[in-house]
Amino acid sequence: MKASVLFSGGKDSSLSAILLEPFFEIELVTCTFGVLQVGEVASQAAEKLGFPHRILELDRQVLEDAYGLLIKDGFPRSSINHIHYAAVEQLASEKGVSAVVDGVRRDDRVPVLTIGQSRSIEDRLGIKYICPLKGYGRSAVDYLVNKYLIIDEGQSSEMIKADYETELREITRQRQDENIMRKLFPSHVQSHVIGRKK
Amino acid sequence: MKASVLFSGGKDSSLSAILLEPFFEIELVTCTFGVLQVGEVASQAAEKLGFPHRILELDRQVLEDAYGLLIKDGFPRSSINHIHYAAVEQLASEKGVSAVVDGVRRDDRVPVLTIGQSRSIEDRLGIKYICPLKGYGRSAVDYLVNKYLIIDEGQSSEMIKADYETELREITRQRQDENIMRKLFPSHVQSHVIGRKK
Repeated sequence: MKASVLFSGGKDSSLSAILLEPFFEIELVTCTFGVLQVGEVASQAAEKLGFPHRILELDRQVLEDAYGLLIKDGFPRSSINHIHYAAVEQLASEKGVSAVVDGVRRDDRVPVLTIGQSRSIEDRLGIKYICPLKGYGRSAVDYLVNKYLIIDEGQSSEMIKADYETELREITRQRQDENIMRKLFPSHVQSHVIGRKK
Repeated sequence: MKASVLFSGGKDSSLSAILLEPFFEIELVTCTFGVLQVGEVASQAAEKLGFPHRILELDRQVLEDAYGLLIKDGFPRSSINHIHYAAVEQLASEKGVSAVVDGVRRDDRVPVLTIGQSRSIEDRLGIKYICPLKGYGRSAVDYLVNKYLIIDEGQSSEMIKADYETELREITRQRQDENIMRKLFPSHVQSHVIGRKK
């Protein structure tokens, strides 16, 4: 069975693909609104991992709705969740997709689907929604990342990563001043996969 | 790294071991209070799977406390959780154990550790607590079970399985009448692994 992994080029989605590789036929799928070249960034990481990769264009209106939520809330949580749910739903609706794979970990707070949302997508769309790292805490993930991946780390404000935050941050940067940007998106360390250990 | 899988001879703990096999050195561990020969039952299933297996004796007082909870509550949920937490804790405390693996699925309600209990065991005891099926729903588990395992199904009241319910049910049967037994332990379908597909 094919498993379509939502892929940001980061360590969690990469590790999710590696954990499923012995049991499924893996394809990596990166979502984009076309605001930045996130697809190309992810494509390079996918090549390093040795998995086939494709880009999925999401409806620009989803990003505009997410921006609206961001400005209303003053923090990106529900905004990122909104994009994530739309991405899972769109990928799960594609013809030929049987399993949608999400890199969420046990301790992640965002983006995360509720159990109800997970079941709803599985039941309505007839697919399997699999989160290989959902039962892994930080120390288990760190162990596996160190064993199988070569990563580069940097501040989120300085790295282009193929996650939902990157394009949301970009349209916010185009519309808001620097002070508001810093408040909405506090900088944090992000990882980017640059190779795989065999 | 060695991963010690809490093993009941059922499909979830078997599948958990199979999912981790490419990444960890697997050992299966079956907990018993010595009330029934559950260790032998599990040992046969482990041999069919091709993994090393050992038996872990739990303190009989844990079972007595669980029995107390069962009679107080009138249903086995917190009673089974009590035994499960003690089993994870005892296995995690053993010298030489680095990762404790639990076969819980996304939609399971019992036995299940809370995220707080999971973190507490990891932090206090310095081990990794891994639940490989925590991000899998029923249809994904069914797909993998069908692909990798040969199972036998039967009513829980008629099968000896190496899970916590089996011995708890046995001491309750010795002390209570049949009507109370049926109320405390409604019969349900249980699976037992009898082989592995290659």
